[in-house]
Amino acid sequence: MIVCKFGGTSVASAEQIQKVAGIVKANPSRKIVAVSAPGKRSGDDIKVTDLLIDLADAALNNTDIETKIQTVVSRYKAIADGLNLNNTICEVIANDLRERLQGDKSNTELFVDSLKASGEDNNAKLIATYFNSIGMPARYVSPKEGLVVNDLPERTFALPEAYENLASLKNTEEIIVFPGFFGYTKAGVLRTFDRGGSDITGSILAAAVEAELYENFTDVDCVFSANPKVVNDPVEIKEITYREMRELSYAGFSVFHDEALMPVYKIGVPVNIKNTNNPSAPGTRIVPTRKATGRPVTGISADSGFSTLYVSKYLMNREIGFGRKLLHILEDENISYEHTPSGLDDISVIMRSNQLTPEIEERIMSRVKTELFADDVQMCHGFSMIVIVGEGMRNNTGLAARAATAISKTGANIEMINQGSSEVSLVFGVLEEFENQILQALYGEFFSPVKA
Amino acid sequence: MIVCKFGGTSVASAEQIQKVAGIVKANPSRKIVAVSAPGKRSGDDIKVTDLLIDLADAALNNTDIETKIQTVVSRYKAIADGLNLNNTICEVIANDLRERLQGDKSNTELFVDSLKASGEDNNAKLIATYFNSIGMPARYVSPKEGLVVNDLPERTFALPEAYENLASLKNTEEIIVFPGFFGYTKAGVLRTFDRGGSDITGSILAAAVEAELYENFTDVDCVFSANPKVVNDPVEIKEITYREMRELSYAGFSVFHDEALMPVYKIGVPVNIKNTNNPSAPGTRIVPTRKATGRPVTGISADSGFSTLYVSKYLMNREIGFGRKLLHILEDENISYEHTPSGLDDISVIMRSNQLTPEIEERIMSRVKTELFADDVQMCHGFSMIVIVGEGMRNNTGLAARAATAISKTGANIEMINQGSSEVSLVFGVLEEFENQILQALYGEFFSPVKA
Repeated sequence: MIVCKFGGTSVASAEQIQKVAGIVKANPSRKIVAVSAPGKRSGDDIKVTDLLIDLADAALNNTDIETKIQTVVSRYKAIADGLNLNNTICEVIANDLRERLQGDKSNTELFVDSLKASGEDNNAKLIATYFNSIGMPARYVSPKEGLVVNDLPERTFALPEAYENLASLKNTEEIIVFPGFFGYTKAGVLRTFDRGGSDITGSILAAAVEAELYENFTDVDCVFSANPKVVNDPVEIKEITYREMRELSYAGFSVFHDEALMPVYKIGVPVNIKNTNNPSAPGTRIVPTRKATGRPVTGISADSGFSTLYVSKYLMNREIGFGRKLLHILEDENISYEHTPSGLDDISVIMRSNQLTPEIEERIMSRVKTELFADDVQMCHGFSMIVIVGEGMRNNTGLAARAATAISKTGANIEMINQGSSEVSLVFGVLEEFENQILQALYGEFFSPVKA
Repeated sequence: MIVCKFGGTSVASAEQIQKVAGIVKANPSRKIVAVSAPGKRSGDDIKVTDLLIDLADAALNNTDIETKIQTVVSRYKAIADGLNLNNTICEVIANDLRERLQGDKSNTELFVDSLKASGEDNNAKLIATYFNSIGMPARYVSPKEGLVVNDLPERTFALPEAYENLASLKNTEEIIVFPGFFGYTKAGVLRTFDRGGSDITGSILAAAVEAELYENFTDVDCVFSANPKVVNDPVEIKEITYREMRELSYAGFSVFHDEALMPVYKIGVPVNIKNTNNPSAPGTRIVPTRKATGRPVTGISADSGFSTLYVSKYLMNREIGFGRKLLHILEDENISYEHTPSGLDDISVIMRSNQLTPEIEERIMSRVKTELFADDVQMCHGFSMIVIVGEGMRNNTGLAARAATAISKTGANIEMINQGSSEVSLVFGVLEEFENQILQALYGEFFSPVKA
């Protein structure tokens, strides 16, 4: 059994949904289909999810909602018309929206969640209707039928029993059409996944039914070995391991959200990233282990927006508990960090800058001085992290030398190197202004055609 | 005013103490002299301190002490005879020993400390007597006159008031001879410095009187840029900053204990490491800042005996508090660590292996698994750390590349790289078996004669 997930642009229009039907029909193993809400049809289009947020805001502010309801319904109507469906499905959708708008507004977050989730929910109903209309026996299944999530206020995740509940879907005769992006608490409250939305639903379903494969259909042919906006015509990645994918996700490989990998990673279901608009392309397979290729490096990613907290104190390394106390101060500000390079008398903590405000920085620096008696404390901004990833890197003598040499040829200084824990990655910290130049240099070093 | 400290071999015999007198006399600024106990006169000799420990043990075990007292006194007698002193000083020393042996034995550690410290204390009395006998007005000063240290059970350190008390020594007309290695608590209990003994006393005195210079006389001409047992004829270091010295001390540059640097570092007194047996050699100066030399690297040190705790967990970097909790588990075992390289889903903690036992390892690994729900936990041993140090390293584009390339040419794999916090050091973790080879390769890379 194959679980397929179709992203927003794959289900944005009648034409796209016809492609989806063709893909599902082409392989009888494709029995479970997780779908997103209709996405953008072109660059300047508005996603249904954004229309729904707008509608929810209007309802909360008691401004006119009727036009906004019509705007949403008309998007579905255009799709239904294009698929030659009668108006029943649009009535179902309109009624569903009005019902949600009557819902409890005491918790605005949950109210907005309920409206947003209707985008996926109603699209799943529409697509199931369409499949049946063209002779593909299909059934819409609501997340109410088993996708149990945790209660507030923690970030939403599927409870272990969700997997047990959904396991029964493996016996389906019909094609299951399942809306992505949300689940229900035991008390029946709808909650959305805040990151990796529909990808997560597909991954949960694939893990629950122990699928042979999880196909993730999007609008690109594959994952590239480097950002195509920076590197000319980068090599396509045919096969990549979970942990390589995870390390790359660090710095903006945004095709597939890494949290969505978790459910399939745990039981080893391979993932295939494919293109709805070019389904014959092999795509990128994410697998537990893979055969070695000629290259030690699988991909290079880069991301900007990092800051460094530098702390120095004489004889710091003799002071048991110093590093722990420092991390605790950051934890009190709910800040997560990426790396902690250290000397004997100093330590730097590298974190994403978007977690900081001048007030937070001031509090942190003041506490480090007064509670840890640091000699010096500084906060610096404007760093990029460049991550070289590959299963073939460990025990590849000289790889760090090649990378550092390639960087030094650009004239850029290396602000930080982190190697030694992950077996599959090597991280360089550089000033943001050098990021693209260095990415290009490293790509050239590790992906140039092999000389005979 | 200059404070001089003379180490054990510099005061081991009459001949050596005559050299000390010559050195002190040669510069009238040398007004305060801190001395060690008589050290080894040749390779198979026994240091007085070791004789004293043996004596203390005998007293604690109620075995014969008379012969052992004679052995100690005869060492001083040989020195006194060689210096043409009459027997009075030896009687003073013998009486002092007998008095200490009558002391309180309820705390054996303090009893042994009292005996050990007599080595320095009586040598200071003897040297002051000798100085006076040759027309150098001198005065023995006991640490009782101001060197106040903290109470048990913490490791011994000088209290702030010690510096205030000892500041008055700056007005001395006579040469002060001050025993190294110990101080007294406010209640009058003698306590020894457990690391860097007499070097610390000299440093405290130099800081207290705000000396223009702290001369540390030992038995080597200088600090070398690399271990002369591994590297042939390494470059002598003429001048080195405090923080360079500190980073090098990490890995076995044992000439001058880094804790002893603390008092002078705080107020910026320069240190001069010199050789009692070759006082005209300029030695190595340890200074707050220094002029740039042609070389970015000042020294390279290497040390073996490191272990790595490797922990992996999917989505670790999203889990605020993970690193802090991990470090807390180590802290509970009183373990200090050196570096914590990290990937997205894994972190390694590098620590000195001598802190571990199979039981401690088992407890740590078990807690990491059960309390932090790690996917994988491993402890590996047999690593060396190689540290490249130099004020000229920061902003020296390509230095990491040169170092990594030099290492890769040895065929060794780089297990860890840590760069990014200290401005003056770059650390490589390698397998112990490659340590010497890599040290030689790096020395060759950074210290070969500059090609025109």
